[in-house]
Amino acid sequence: MQFESTSENIDLIKGLVENKNNKEVSKIMDNLHPADIAELMDDLSIEEAKFIYLLLDGEKASDVLVEIPDNDRKRFLKVLPPEFIASKFIEYMDSDDAADIVADLEDEVKREVLNEIEDHEQAGDIVDLLEYEEDTAGGIMAKELVSVNENWTIATCLKEISKQAEEVDEIYYIYVVDNTEKLKGVLSLKKLILNNTNTKISKIYNADLKMVNTDTRQEVVAEIMDKYNLVAIPVVDDIGRLKGRITFDDVIDFVREEAGKDYQMVSGIIGDVESSDKVWELLRARFPWLIIGMLGGIVGSLVLGSHEKSLSKVTELAFFIPLIAAMAGNVGVQSSSIVVQSIASGVKNVESTYRKLFKEVSVALATASFFSLLIFLYIYFSRGDMNLTYSVSITLFIVILFASGLGTVIPLVLNRFKIDPALATGPFITTMNDILGLLIYLTIGGMFFDIL
Amino acid sequence: MQFESTSENIDLIKGLVENKNNKEVSKIMDNLHPADIAELMDDLSIEEAKFIYLLLDGEKASDVLVEIPDNDRKRFLKVLPPEFIASKFIEYMDSDDAADIVADLEDEVKREVLNEIEDHEQAGDIVDLLEYEEDTAGGIMAKELVSVNENWTIATCLKEISKQAEEVDEIYYIYVVDNTEKLKGVLSLKKLILNNTNTKISKIYNADLKMVNTDTRQEVVAEIMDKYNLVAIPVVDDIGRLKGRITFDDVIDFVREEAGKDYQMVSGIIGDVESSDKVWELLRARFPWLIIGMLGGIVGSLVLGSHEKSLSKVTELAFFIPLIAAMAGNVGVQSSSIVVQSIASGVKNVESTYRKLFKEVSVALATASFFSLLIFLYIYFSRGDMNLTYSVSITLFIVILFASGLGTVIPLVLNRFKIDPALATGPFITTMNDILGLLIYLTIGGMFFDIL
Repeated sequence: MQFESTSENIDLIKGLVENKNNKEVSKIMDNLHPADIAELMDDLSIEEAKFIYLLLDGEKASDVLVEIPDNDRKRFLKVLPPEFIASKFIEYMDSDDAADIVADLEDEVKREVLNEIEDHEQAGDIVDLLEYEEDTAGGIMAKELVSVNENWTIATCLKEISKQAEEVDEIYYIYVVDNTEKLKGVLSLKKLILNNTNTKISKIYNADLKMVNTDTRQEVVAEIMDKYNLVAIPVVDDIGRLKGRITFDDVIDFVREEAGKDYQMVSGIIGDVESSDKVWELLRARFPWLIIGMLGGIVGSLVLGSHEKSLSKVTELAFFIPLIAAMAGNVGVQSSSIVVQSIASGVKNVESTYRKLFKEVSVALATASFFSLLIFLYIYFSRGDMNLTYSVSITLFIVILFASGLGTVIPLVLNRFKIDPALATGPFITTMNDILGLLIYLTIGGMFFDIL
Repeated sequence: MQFESTSENIDLIKGLVENKNNKEVSKIMDNLHPADIAELMDDLSIEEAKFIYLLLDGEKASDVLVEIPDNDRKRFLKVLPPEFIASKFIEYMDSDDAADIVADLEDEVKREVLNEIEDHEQAGDIVDLLEYEEDTAGGIMAKELVSVNENWTIATCLKEISKQAEEVDEIYYIYVVDNTEKLKGVLSLKKLILNNTNTKISKIYNADLKMVNTDTRQEVVAEIMDKYNLVAIPVVDDIGRLKGRITFDDVIDFVREEAGKDYQMVSGIIGDVESSDKVWELLRARFPWLIIGMLGGIVGSLVLGSHEKSLSKVTELAFFIPLIAAMAGNVGVQSSSIVVQSIASGVKNVESTYRKLFKEVSVALATASFFSLLIFLYIYFSRGDMNLTYSVSITLFIVILFASGLGTVIPLVLNRFKIDPALATGPFITTMNDILGLLIYLTIGGMFFDIL
């Protein structure tokens, strides 16, 4: 069943909650997927959500909690007692989700919750996972996995797997380890099903498998899983012992987040905001780049002010200020975003430096020539003033070359110094090119009209 | 083994290919994953790539072909004979990949290739898949899957699965159908392993599964798989018969592509280009928005020209043209991208229209007030000219309100009319707001200086 959180459905549920109709609410929730309940709760007040929450059984309650967006979850956990968090959520969760949730709690609550967990092995797993850095394979992996010893037969395996499988949601791969817990290879379920039960595992496992280390950065993990189309990847420690596994859903989330970050940067927004966020959250996301744009505008006014004489003598010069600024901005943003996208998609550019340079220069020259010819013809035929025609078209030519150059070089330099190259897209590059464009324009205009 | 396409490695391989050292090249390729070979080929000439290709065995050759980017693949297939394409690639491929490749061939070659395929069932599958529209579930699904009849026992299942599994790369789920091929539910491998072999399938399968129709749009498929964290989803026809399955790797690709499209739009780039693309591809991607920006600049010059008198009398007015334009542009891009991102992430905004409006207006008012106060103070203290101070700060206030409003409303309207709302981000909104900003500025400036 595909649940739609339409306003009617939400009003219906709000009504039931208000009347404390436990029975009816429970019945509706029983038929809903945890992801749907999470979506629904997004539209309820925190008190209404809490009421529904307390009606869910542990398994479902924990699945719902995993699906709720981070910020909402933090707020929500604050209104729930620690022993409730431990007994109702954590115990039913995979260790990676549990660790994420525990990590978000305040120190005091965190300790209380960890002590309330009855399954000591699970509590230990969570504490182990909290040791790893957040953006490494160790920080995102789950401890739950199915592993078998290379010396077992398929029959022994099947018995062991039935024990281990209870706490694993989905078995994607069965990992094969030796007596010292070192990861040796992988056994597909297909092989397990298709071979004779007394076959030895060491005969049939695949030793050629991709794995990552606990301290591999998560972007590298995502890259490997994506490149080799893996549903799950095992994580090992420095001496090769199997420590956990990472599944494809984490990678999808990561790919989406990363793409979102570059998008926000080029749009001049800080952080992950949506139109449904609070007013102050929206303002906080928007002000920083606007302030930079404002400062750029003020510098621009100073540049123009220092050429007051030219402008007051030849008012027409002012007419083309917006055109120069717009072209410089657009060309700059285009160049920088193409570079950023290429860096992000991990394009290994093995073209020789000479060829690369030649290509960049060709693109910039072609663009600059085309658009300055266009504006040359427009001004010549519409106004006929040769000084103005030359000033604007020559300026545009130079400005496009500069904007392309800076747009290409700055992200590369940032990346070289391990700074996010996306910083050089959006308002940053526009503002810089605006100022540069004005300087070039007024200098050239001044030369042509000989008014300095 | 993690292959690095470093220039040394590539030069090594280029050398081996030049010397026609089949043996050594084959040895290197044997140790490489198809995805690595594809990456490597990206850096070779088409003739070098072809040489390596002809050395690969069918299985690997087809895996490599699937990993090559679309455009390169098209060029590459052109230099290969049809019977080679059929016997060396298609026969080893999953039906969805085979259909994608056949779809890209020219009509005549397409027919030849289809006729050369020896496995008539596979040829039939491909022709079937080509019937579906490209961006629907039918167009992206594969025919290969493992299905069992609900009336079988686990023992029968295992036997049947070993037959079917040969042509399926990975079994993620086993689909359960009735005697008329209608999809009834899903059987996890876990259940299959953990139950007794004479258990009847109908007793253990899970009837609560997500499925999509052959004509479900691919963005909806991606949304469902992502929301419910599915590795694979079954595709059924209008009367519920199982037709194929879609796997998670297609979804990751789709999520990345969609995110990329929005990014390109806000950056003013058309299509998916990378810095390693050809000069003319880069130009084609950049010219359309630049032309629009240019036209906007020309309209801007006309607006300024029609207020020539004001500008020539009060040159200071021109100083703040770039500031007004930059703020209008930045605020507009921010507003539109937040809306586009919210639409893309499928945020169901059930806030009342009144509340939503109130929030948008609050954000716009706060931004407008803050920045116009800032510029008021700056101009007052730096220049002291009250007319200029009022003109610029009042203009900025109004322009920010307009830019926020248009940035918010236009994507919503486009979306309402089923046009991609991302069109309203980037150069489009900047250009529009530039012109609007100039009009407002000169009107207000004219009023204060009373020079019209």
